[in-house]
Amino acid sequence: MDQLKKRLKIKNILVRQCLSECLGTFILIIFGLSASAQVRTTQGMKGQYLSINMAFSVGVMVAMYISRNISGAHLNPALSLCSCVMGQMPWAKLLPYCLSQVLGAYIASAVVFFMYYDAIMDYSSGILTVYGANETASIFATYPSEFLTLGSSFLDQAVGTGMIMMCYLPLVDIQNDPVPHNLVPPLVAVGLLGISMAMSSNCGGAINPARDLGPRLLTLCAGWGTEVFTAYNYWFWVPIVAPMVGAVLATWIYVIIIQWHLPEMHLPQLEQEEPRSDLLPGTGSHRSVETAFENGLELSQKL
Amino acid sequence: MDQLKKRLKIKNILVRQCLSECLGTFILIIFGLSASAQVRTTQGMKGQYLSINMAFSVGVMVAMYISRNISGAHLNPALSLCSCVMGQMPWAKLLPYCLSQVLGAYIASAVVFFMYYDAIMDYSSGILTVYGANETASIFATYPSEFLTLGSSFLDQAVGTGMIMMCYLPLVDIQNDPVPHNLVPPLVAVGLLGISMAMSSNCGGAINPARDLGPRLLTLCAGWGTEVFTAYNYWFWVPIVAPMVGAVLATWIYVIIIQWHLPEMHLPQLEQEEPRSDLLPGTGSHRSVETAFENGLELSQKL
Amino acid sequence: MDQLKKRLKIKNILVRQCLSECLGTFILIIFGLSASAQVRTTQGMKGQYLSINMAFSVGVMVAMYISRNISGAHLNPALSLCSCVMGQMPWAKLLPYCLSQVLGAYIASAVVFFMYYDAIMDYSSGILTVYGANETASIFATYPSEFLTLGSSFLDQAVGTGMIMMCYLPLVDIQNDPVPHNLVPPLVAVGLLGISMAMSSNCGGAINPARDLGPRLLTLCAGWGTEVFTAYNYWFWVPIVAPMVGAVLATWIYVIIIQWHLPEMHLPQLEQEEPRSDLLPGTGSHRSVETAFENGLELSQKL
Amino acid sequence: MDQLKKRLKIKNILVRQCLSECLGTFILIIFGLSASAQVRTTQGMKGQYLSINMAFSVGVMVAMYISRNISGAHLNPALSLCSCVMGQMPWAKLLPYCLSQVLGAYIASAVVFFMYYDAIMDYSSGILTVYGANETASIFATYPSEFLTLGSSFLDQAVGTGMIMMCYLPLVDIQNDPVPHNLVPPLVAVGLLGISMAMSSNCGGAINPARDLGPRLLTLCAGWGTEVFTAYNYWFWVPIVAPMVGAVLATWIYVIIIQWHLPEMHLPQLEQEEPRSDLLPGTGSHRSVETAFENGLELSQKL
Repeated sequence: MDQLKKRLKIKNILVRQCLSECLGTFILIIFGLSASAQVRTTQGMKGQYLSINMAFSVGVMVAMYISRNISGAHLNPALSLCSCVMGQMPWAKLLPYCLSQVLGAYIASAVVFFMYYDAIMDYSSGILTVYGANETASIFATYPSEFLTLGSSFLDQAVGTGMIMMCYLPLVDIQNDPVPHNLVPPLVAVGLLGISMAMSSNCGGAINPARDLGPRLLTLCAGWGTEVFTAYNYWFWVPIVAPMVGAVLATWIYVIIIQWHLPEMHLPQLEQEEPRSDLLPGTGSHRSVETAFENGLELSQKL
Repeated sequence: MDQLKKRLKIKNILVRQCLSECLGTFILIIFGLSASAQVRTTQGMKGQYLSINMAFSVGVMVAMYISRNISGAHLNPALSLCSCVMGQMPWAKLLPYCLSQVLGAYIASAVVFFMYYDAIMDYSSGILTVYGANETASIFATYPSEFLTLGSSFLDQAVGTGMIMMCYLPLVDIQNDPVPHNLVPPLVAVGLLGISMAMSSNCGGAINPARDLGPRLLTLCAGWGTEVFTAYNYWFWVPIVAPMVGAVLATWIYVIIIQWHLPEMHLPQLEQEEPRSDLLPGTGSHRSVETAFENGLELSQKL
Repeated sequence: MDQLKKRLKIKNILVRQCLSECLGTFILIIFGLSASAQVRTTQGMKGQYLSINMAFSVGVMVAMYISRNISGAHLNPALSLCSCVMGQMPWAKLLPYCLSQVLGAYIASAVVFFMYYDAIMDYSSGILTVYGANETASIFATYPSEFLTLGSSFLDQAVGTGMIMMCYLPLVDIQNDPVPHNLVPPLVAVGLLGISMAMSSNCGGAINPARDLGPRLLTLCAGWGTEVFTAYNYWFWVPIVAPMVGAVLATWIYVIIIQWHLPEMHLPQLEQEEPRSDLLPGTGSHRSVETAFENGLELSQKL
Repeated sequence: MDQLKKRLKIKNILVRQCLSECLGTFILIIFGLSASAQVRTTQGMKGQYLSINMAFSVGVMVAMYISRNISGAHLNPALSLCSCVMGQMPWAKLLPYCLSQVLGAYIASAVVFFMYYDAIMDYSSGILTVYGANETASIFATYPSEFLTLGSSFLDQAVGTGMIMMCYLPLVDIQNDPVPHNLVPPLVAVGLLGISMAMSSNCGGAINPARDLGPRLLTLCAGWGTEVFTAYNYWFWVPIVAPMVGAVLATWIYVIIIQWHLPEMHLPQLEQEEPRSDLLPGTGSHRSVETAFENGLELSQKL
């Protein structure tokens, strides 16, 4: 056992973190897409739209508990980007994080595809399509409503991802009397549930580039064809780009309207810290901007 | 960055608090109305009545976490009024608070209008009406049922808002062994969910003047016409006035039946405090009445 | 203000406790019955069976937060009975507690009747009946299914109430590593939600004599006639008696199978206490049996 | 009373633990199957698929609170197996644990059968069958969909049980900054809710050999005949074997990807402990593997 551990234990911190993000995103997606497949293939007999929303939300909670102490439980390239923008994560880590998240989502989609293979084949009579009444592509990736203009779908994705940040930031900002670290996951999950129930009818509520791109790649490989990317005039880029924009904007709004004006009363014991530590937040007025993301990330850089 | 912060940081406390209330109410309303738009425009295919109730509830939680440490997270003019009646907030702040809340609700309604513009146009065939099968006004503001008398709707709104106070007060009253401050938002959200599920069929369950007036003003501006105010014999004043009355009455019932009889055992360490501090609750028997509202408000006056 | 407090403050402890139970039960019932009225009178358009279950559950949470530090938040004669059986409450208090609970439920039913008067009249075409497709009596009290035998309904009510005790006892038993006192209400509420979803189709899932008798008396007075008591062969006694029996049996099962075998490790600091204090649990092996109910009761006897 | 306690108190630790597991599983199953019976026999009028998922979830929470401090609240043979594989429980206890769980599930099924006897007879016109539109066997045990291949159902059960472990392990792993012990039950319950909503349409989502075998035995005895075991080509072994496989695999994935790389920072005060104590986790690098299961088990071995 100890032998095995010595051989298999990963020395490289970034590889550890990427594995953790990959496993976390795998769990998030397997919950969400399974529920999606269950509701669709039973035509609502064994679930409803609400249960898909709830399953994604539970998936986020479980995934955050799994990965938060290794990689910070980003699970979403938009969150990783904010983390870089705010100076919490080196830019060099952004791409590995994002790729790990997409990979986790891809593997999860594959597992869901095999688990629900019989059901999907039964439901779709064996014809995997992107359009039509029996289409099954939207079990995996998101697609816009017929009537939706590009602007509306971009706004929808940007606002939705912004709302995630509005939910996440006060929960981890140490100047804002945050909840205990180990209770953050269920509260973020509740916030996500709200967003899923409120902003998913226009274009599926991906609000996470990895959640959308990973499953889309799976459907490309598994038999739905290139239409999964070309559909709706190459719409697939919207749930990749818009969440990035929305997340960064929301972070700035939070920082300017809320964080700068919070009393600095929760930090007395940190004042004596060294003026730059990887394990602890920085000094001066930026402190809480930076520490908003310290839920795991900073910690793991020290490993 | 520090430069930017120095320039943009707001010196005036009241302005900070108003911005915080505005952002908080914005978030509350954007969750609730988006869900309302999603359920209506998909005709229940992507959500149900329950998901609207739940989305408002999640919105309250997220909004309270955002604004509680700057402005006390009132998010509701009725709560601000109680705060003044109980001597927790100077009367001079009441109007700015209420206006900020209405403004936040108005802006949120506008964002929801743009996000769901395509969907609303598709659903209503482009005709924005207050009455009829395809009416879309009630996505935003609340309207009474056809059969409802004025007395019933007033009672409905007063009791509903009273129940919010019954939920909120024991959670923040320091004499009543309250929950930790940073766990109040999800519990208030659960209470609100109960009220939404139980007291919203008569007349929409606004129980918050800002939640109703802000979106109503938006519909006035966005093309629904003056009927949004004249409908049902100028009914719009009920969800503005009744919540105020109900909230104050419920607060008094709580104080008289519960608070006066609580043991004063949780406060030993506060007895030594100076006999009037803005940061800490007052002295004597009124203490907990006053401190019931101290969740942020008192604190921020000190900033 | 101080003047007013001096005049209105209640000196008698039992009266305080009864008022608190009355207010608590009032809140519990107003949540539950409002939801019931909302779902019935809108024929499921603005709610569903699940929302009635959830509203009762939220009502329990809010009511427990209101009354737990004055009267122990029994809210249910079956719980008060267990409390007496276990020696936690003097038998002399049982009747006043139960009457207060029934009174609170009665007043709440009356408020719901007025709030939903227009809706009930519209739904039932003005004819208040106990039987038939448009019956409205079951909005308030519970009635058995047509096919149900007396034995099944008695078993149903006894098991349901027993499950409440199975949920409640480990949460407050200080030997069982209980949750913090101020987090008990939401967890009991979740337990009750489970029972409502699982054991309410046979005969309405009252599992609380006050919840059933109070509203039944209101329907007697408000125009449904004596049939509310005579219906189904005077069935009304079942939700009064069976919960009492089930609660006591379940308490004993918990004590024998679980409590007697718990390690006494959580109590070291209490060992030094005086051998009989009203404020703290008793001594010896009975300690946690007695303290299972100390969530407020013991405390308030000291007032 | 003391006399009674002396006579009835169980001296043998294993018997205590088995009784505790039996009572815990009894509660879990009585919640879940009652909801299942309620939804089926009312044809969805008093509940929906989601309420069955939720009731099982609530049942897990209540059952965990009941039994966690005596027997560790396994409630699932797959969890007991993992516990043995990881060296947390002696292999000799595995069979008694599993039998107790099956027994608890069997007794609960019998109680549900009597509670819903009238309803089941009314719904099925008195004919208890495993196949057909009015079949009632699936109220109790799980059966696969018509179209399902053996491989898919095995994968489904293995992945589902694996997800339970992914939810459970970080919540109790002391190296992973776990939540307070007494808040684990509701969080595991939420995880289970997600799995029930996402992975139960293929073959009922048993993910627990005791949950499936106990009720299946009851249906065998209560009149459904041997078909409950022979149906779908003796499919009953899948929800017994697959969860075992899935749980062990998931535990290893968690250990290798997450646990080995966690900082050992949460344990400073434990380093001074004796190098092998039954009450406290072991030493060296295995510590948290072993302690992942210490939620009650280790503790009770000391009794």
